[in-house]
Amino acid sequence: MPRCRVTRRVHFNAAHRLHNPAASDAWNRTTYGVCNNPNYHGHNYELDLSVEGDVNPDTGYVLDLNHLKELAQERLLRHLDHKNLNLDVPWFRELIPTSENIAVVCWRELRAALPAELALSLRLWETPRNYVDYQGE
Amino acid sequence: MPRCRVTRRVHFNAAHRLHNPAASDAWNRTTYGVCNNPNYHGHNYELDLSVEGDVNPDTGYVLDLNHLKELAQERLLRHLDHKNLNLDVPWFRELIPTSENIAVVCWRELRAALPAELALSLRLWETPRNYVDYQGE
Amino acid sequence: MPRCRVTRRVHFNAAHRLHNPAASDAWNRTTYGVCNNPNYHGHNYELDLSVEGDVNPDTGYVLDLNHLKELAQERLLRHLDHKNLNLDVPWFRELIPTSENIAVVCWRELRAALPAELALSLRLWETPRNYVDYQGE
Amino acid sequence: MPRCRVTRRVHFNAAHRLHNPAASDAWNRTTYGVCNNPNYHGHNYELDLSVEGDVNPDTGYVLDLNHLKELAQERLLRHLDHKNLNLDVPWFRELIPTSENIAVVCWRELRAALPAELALSLRLWETPRNYVDYQGE
Amino acid sequence: MPRCRVTRRVHFNAAHRLHNPAASDAWNRTTYGVCNNPNYHGHNYELDLSVEGDVNPDTGYVLDLNHLKELAQERLLRHLDHKNLNLDVPWFRELIPTSENIAVVCWRELRAALPAELALSLRLWETPRNYVDYQGE
Amino acid sequence: MPRCRVTRRVHFNAAHRLHNPAASDAWNRTTYGVCNNPNYHGHNYELDLSVEGDVNPDTGYVLDLNHLKELAQERLLRHLDHKNLNLDVPWFRELIPTSENIAVVCWRELRAALPAELALSLRLWETPRNYVDYQGE
Repeated sequence: MPRCRVTRRVHFNAAHRLHNPAASDAWNRTTYGVCNNPNYHGHNYELDLSVEGDVNPDTGYVLDLNHLKELAQERLLRHLDHKNLNLDVPWFRELIPTSENIAVVCWRELRAALPAELALSLRLWETPRNYVDYQGE
Repeated sequence: MPRCRVTRRVHFNAAHRLHNPAASDAWNRTTYGVCNNPNYHGHNYELDLSVEGDVNPDTGYVLDLNHLKELAQERLLRHLDHKNLNLDVPWFRELIPTSENIAVVCWRELRAALPAELALSLRLWETPRNYVDYQGE
Repeated sequence: MPRCRVTRRVHFNAAHRLHNPAASDAWNRTTYGVCNNPNYHGHNYELDLSVEGDVNPDTGYVLDLNHLKELAQERLLRHLDHKNLNLDVPWFRELIPTSENIAVVCWRELRAALPAELALSLRLWETPRNYVDYQGE
Repeated sequence: MPRCRVTRRVHFNAAHRLHNPAASDAWNRTTYGVCNNPNYHGHNYELDLSVEGDVNPDTGYVLDLNHLKELAQERLLRHLDHKNLNLDVPWFRELIPTSENIAVVCWRELRAALPAELALSLRLWETPRNYVDYQGE
Repeated sequence: MPRCRVTRRVHFNAAHRLHNPAASDAWNRTTYGVCNNPNYHGHNYELDLSVEGDVNPDTGYVLDLNHLKELAQERLLRHLDHKNLNLDVPWFRELIPTSENIAVVCWRELRAALPAELALSLRLWETPRNYVDYQGE
Repeated sequence: MPRCRVTRRVHFNAAHRLHNPAASDAWNRTTYGVCNNPNYHGHNYELDLSVEGDVNPDTGYVLDLNHLKELAQERLLRHLDHKNLNLDVPWFRELIPTSENIAVVCWRELRAALPAELALSLRLWETPRNYVDYQGE
């Protein structure tokens, strides 16, 4: 049975601020620069969700990408889209919303909703020139 | 003398909220939907700056696009990039930061810095699927 | 009142065949080449819908692009997406579904649903390297 | 000797229908939704062909990408471009032309034409937001 | 008869240097900066060729875009692709190969090969963030 | 501690010629075709720099991508941008500047500037349809 990886790209628009409350203001300004702006800035995030598994001979699918899109809407996008990641999203109450951390959180949320035999990896684009890949623990 | 239009694309990341303080909360929610989120959301804006004029026979340029890029940095981007448009940018103290209004403000600011014989128009991309064109009053 | 043009990009996937039944098979093969394949081929169409008008001072909008997106869904996409343009879409019963003709038909359908004071133009991408612009009669 | 992976992107436009003739019409409609349209729909496919091997010190190439492009034209594109995958392409007579299956078939056809010491993998984009990766059995 | 504008995007890769031999070396360095490098640098140019005219009711075409592509190959690309614009292309013997001048030259060459009733305009992308538009004298 | 891979895309414009001086002119013309043009041609190169490591719990970063961008500027781009790779860049004095060799050289230069616990890989785009991946020896 051939084994493929299928990917669906979804997106969300959000505001965020990079700030570690356990550190000084000076450390935060040095570490995060303009991303530390106390009034937030924002991005159009693109999120590529990849699922790897055997091709089902009856459907020709690893997984119906429309199903993956609906899962992403329910598990991820309705919590993230048009939100302030720091203020509106409980996942980031004690976690700094860097691209790395957003990717890890999205992976954990979606992993819990997928059958065990499918492997999950993802790529999060913060801008067209910056992205992060995460394939799980 | 041939007449061309040259364009330089620049970008900025910003947070914003669409809200008209003169109207009711209900009107704002109906009019702006998720864009009315009180905690802001954000975008990677791309801004195409177009200048039309005669090609200078000595340089072969309408205008040096590096000069246009520097003008954009000084007049526009240092005020907009990694900012909250509603809170950090005086231009939007009494103006709702829709794409239309951002485009009009950018046009006016840059127009004032360009020689009179050059025509200015611009396109502002709010997302890869939404944009606004403005060519002046 | 500033006057802007706002654009929303929508998309649809469709099959089509270029064939003029009033002409000979030889003429059709010569005129349309591989696009004349009797069993159809297909495209991912991208459609940029542009509306020009005054910026409303209360909303900061020319037109709510979500409203334009819904209009496009109702008037255009539900008739075109995942369809065979020649067989499934009445608009092309007696009209060859070239990009030019698809653009003209989409313009007429959407024009009828927009207020008279807004000007409509559109760009239809048949591939990332081929497109057509139409701004009405 | 450094080992690199080189990639050439090629494309084709095709119509297809997702339908399993061994299953009921109801199953097919439920499983494939609008992709089950009996009159077909279509896509602009982009196909990234990747070949991994040692860099040849005489040429500085893993493989001449123009040669890979010609192989793709001869082995893949002349069978797929401007075709109906279900009706015109023998490879899909008994195989449902999902992205997964198209990717597997392209891999097998191209694999047979490459030297054994070069590894082949590919990515097939069905739309700009959907793709599949396959690296062989 | 509806009137449309159809566009075909073509591309070429070339080296060039911006230098005005009638001016001093100092003037050239100040005016062109790194683009004045005596050993040349280069670009992947994308060229959007747009032709406007009535839609022919027999074909549904303004112009067959494959014909436009062939014209571009014959009249433009075979002179420009994989060339040094300063050394290999007679059009730039006495003309500085800025984007503006390349656009004007391409327009003149292609204009002469098109029927008078079709209007020609073009956009030349020097990079994904810099382009020039020219629509003729 | 989650392990991610973060990527920053940078770019440079350069001229080059593919030519092996140890081989005959005929061999060079056959092997490299138009890329052997003695007067050079050029490209807009895009370079994706990927660094893999543990996410630092204090910063939420694997590595500050602005730091990676500055390293790339200092170690790579100031040597490559707006240059003739064959004539201006000592790295290619005895190495043919194919995409494979440019990627290997960039990897070695940047590898030496990164902490040992971070893994480096890169993708070099020569055109939007051709690229090479390299992840080290």
